[in-house]
Amino acid sequence: MMGVILAHESAAFRPRLSIVQVEESTDLAPRFDAAGLLTVVTTDAESGDVVMVGVMNAEALARTIETREAHYWSRSRQCLWHKGATSGLTQHVVELRIDDDQDAVWLRVKTAGVGANCHVGYRSCFYRRVDLPVDEGVSAPAARLVFCEAEKTFDPIAVYGDAPNPTQL
Amino acid sequence: MMGVILAHESAAFRPRLSIVQVEESTDLAPRFDAAGLLTVVTTDAESGDVVMVGVMNAEALARTIETREAHYWSRSRQCLWHKGATSGLTQHVVELRIDDDQDAVWLRVKTAGVGANCHVGYRSCFYRRVDLPVDEGVSAPAARLVFCEAEKTFDPIAVYGDAPNPTQL
Repeated sequence: MMGVILAHESAAFRPRLSIVQVEESTDLAPRFDAAGLLTVVTTDAESGDVVMVGVMNAEALARTIETREAHYWSRSRQCLWHKGATSGLTQHVVELRIDDDQDAVWLRVKTAGVGANCHVGYRSCFYRRVDLPVDEGVSAPAARLVFCEAEKTFDPIAVYGDAPNPTQL
Repeated sequence: MMGVILAHESAAFRPRLSIVQVEESTDLAPRFDAAGLLTVVTTDAESGDVVMVGVMNAEALARTIETREAHYWSRSRQCLWHKGATSGLTQHVVELRIDDDQDAVWLRVKTAGVGANCHVGYRSCFYRRVDLPVDEGVSAPAARLVFCEAEKTFDPIAVYGDAPNPTQL
């Protein structure tokens, strides 16, 4: 019986044949985990800041390569997620890298509009740093966070309205 | 019955109480997934390049904060992993950021020794980029990879000997 052959399975990606092929060759042979996903790190192509971490399934990766606009798999909504479809803050892919064992990709992007990427309203989802102890080996009490962005770039209520917040406790 | 209270549970992290607390406050209240892990992106503090993606459990995050040396959870070996313990290529943490819903951290590091971070021998695990189609919407044949680092920084055989390769097919 012949199965359905999806374009992104037949054309875009190679089968994984050996460690040498995966690590040392020019074959794009990504590895998706048991849930069909791989990890995506997205950085701002100009500032270099990490702006978000997400996941892609095979379709999201294929569409990102074909369109040069970042597509992810939304775990909160369980659907393909064209970033910026709601907010207008699309991410144009300047460069797409893949790691040694091909289970993670790094997108360098230029974000449209006001250039923010975080649903809370900041440019980066990583808008807070941990206040690290100055001296190594010092066990601090409960670590505190320090804000790295002085203010939000957009108002999430104005952009997303009453859409459910993806953050889970 | 009193349970064992681990230091990294009692002192370093706060319980997750509300979305406002998690997203808008200065409380460090990380979210570990069903496997007890969160995603870690590590960048070179000088070049800004993403050098690796890994995971941490609560102990790895607490030790990283306390010692300012990157600790991960090794999924291939199923143990706490002090990066560089074998190779000497330890990662000094210059900055540690956490994302909006606190299920991912970003380490900016300065790597010891020759400054490489990848078990294959390169500075970054992301030593290859996908050769993206120039025109949007053009469905390319099987995408090819292009090497971004001209040569390996160290010889993995000399550093790791016959230790098992962590890459899985």
